[in-house]
Amino acid sequence: MEFKAPDTLAEQLANYLGQRIIMGELPAGERLHELSIANQLEVSRGSVREALYILQRRHLITILPRKGAEVMPLTAHSVKSLYRVYAHLLELLADELVGCWQEKDKVALLERVSQVKRLIESNPRDVPRIVEASFDVMEICCTVVGNPFLQEALENFKPAISRTYYLSMERFRSEIESTRDFFDTLTIAVLARDRQAARKAVQRFGEHQCEMILTSVETQEEGSRQRA
Amino acid sequence: MEFKAPDTLAEQLANYLGQRIIMGELPAGERLHELSIANQLEVSRGSVREALYILQRRHLITILPRKGAEVMPLTAHSVKSLYRVYAHLLELLADELVGCWQEKDKVALLERVSQVKRLIESNPRDVPRIVEASFDVMEICCTVVGNPFLQEALENFKPAISRTYYLSMERFRSEIESTRDFFDTLTIAVLARDRQAARKAVQRFGEHQCEMILTSVETQEEGSRQRA
Repeated sequence: MEFKAPDTLAEQLANYLGQRIIMGELPAGERLHELSIANQLEVSRGSVREALYILQRRHLITILPRKGAEVMPLTAHSVKSLYRVYAHLLELLADELVGCWQEKDKVALLERVSQVKRLIESNPRDVPRIVEASFDVMEICCTVVGNPFLQEALENFKPAISRTYYLSMERFRSEIESTRDFFDTLTIAVLARDRQAARKAVQRFGEHQCEMILTSVETQEEGSRQRA
Repeated sequence: MEFKAPDTLAEQLANYLGQRIIMGELPAGERLHELSIANQLEVSRGSVREALYILQRRHLITILPRKGAEVMPLTAHSVKSLYRVYAHLLELLADELVGCWQEKDKVALLERVSQVKRLIESNPRDVPRIVEASFDVMEICCTVVGNPFLQEALENFKPAISRTYYLSMERFRSEIESTRDFFDTLTIAVLARDRQAARKAVQRFGEHQCEMILTSVETQEEGSRQRA
């Protein structure tokens, strides 16, 4: 396991376990036992418990009081619910950004968008990096907007959204141009300070991504029904 | 301190500390020292740490890695940011509710709204109970809508919103009719399945409450400037 330096032990544990959930190594419904994780990774139970609280805030696990933690299920219903809220918050971000960006923010904003687009051109199959670069765009938008509650809510959704992209990796790759088109449309709308168009772009992209992921979830659900 | 039976110790601690923040006994900026809280309340440091994570999720404190926790500041900027996100999520709730309520939900929904309105008539000065009853309306709406991410996000905002109401208790009382009017307008819009009107009602109420609280925050800030 790789640990980044500046995080606390609990955050490192949360990142490590979170990554395993995102990549599907810890599947939906899997129980996370505090004691066995602590023994396995040779850390204190307290640190594991803290890590579980962090993962709960990141929408990756559910903690049932006195029952323990389990990896959040990914059903058609939960994916729809997730994207409904996430896209709605992104709409607010876009709306605020349209209203508040200044000339001095333009270079940084456009640079981040260019990075995603360059990645899509040069490495269209590298989903993890494209997703990461897309979140970087979101992050710079959050910095410009300066709403700590919105930023925190969006940050907390990143892992759960990444998880859905891992699940539908192949379709994400085959429909990568929709991601590029989204960034183009959004950039034009934000530069023109067109609230309506910016919101519409986010809404449409959210719906498209959700549909894409639902197809993968339904294929999976179909698969597990047939195996059962 | 009063403890409710079914919660874990960490949740009980979070509720106790949270209540003190909401009521202003622990003021903005106050540091929360894990060890001194543990000693004072005769509980383990681990339980206090868990409680702090819960309070962070409820937007009442900020945890700075390696630096400890402090009570979240209530400035004009943070109040505006808070209400912007909260009202935006309530708009989504109203929108979803308009689309999905069924005849069988009607009695429970209307009953909760009546409870708030009865309270406003009979005890117009009992802000805590009116706020609690308003949250009960939100809760039944969440149950009908059935989006766990939206429900969790809104639940987590309750303490921070309560805190702002405590801060502006007197103005809340003197403008209590705007709360009653909001529930009337919203009920009519939801029953008529009028998305536009429902969103508009929430938006206007959110803006009104935010303005009301800003006045109190500014009075406070003015006061502390004069004392300084």
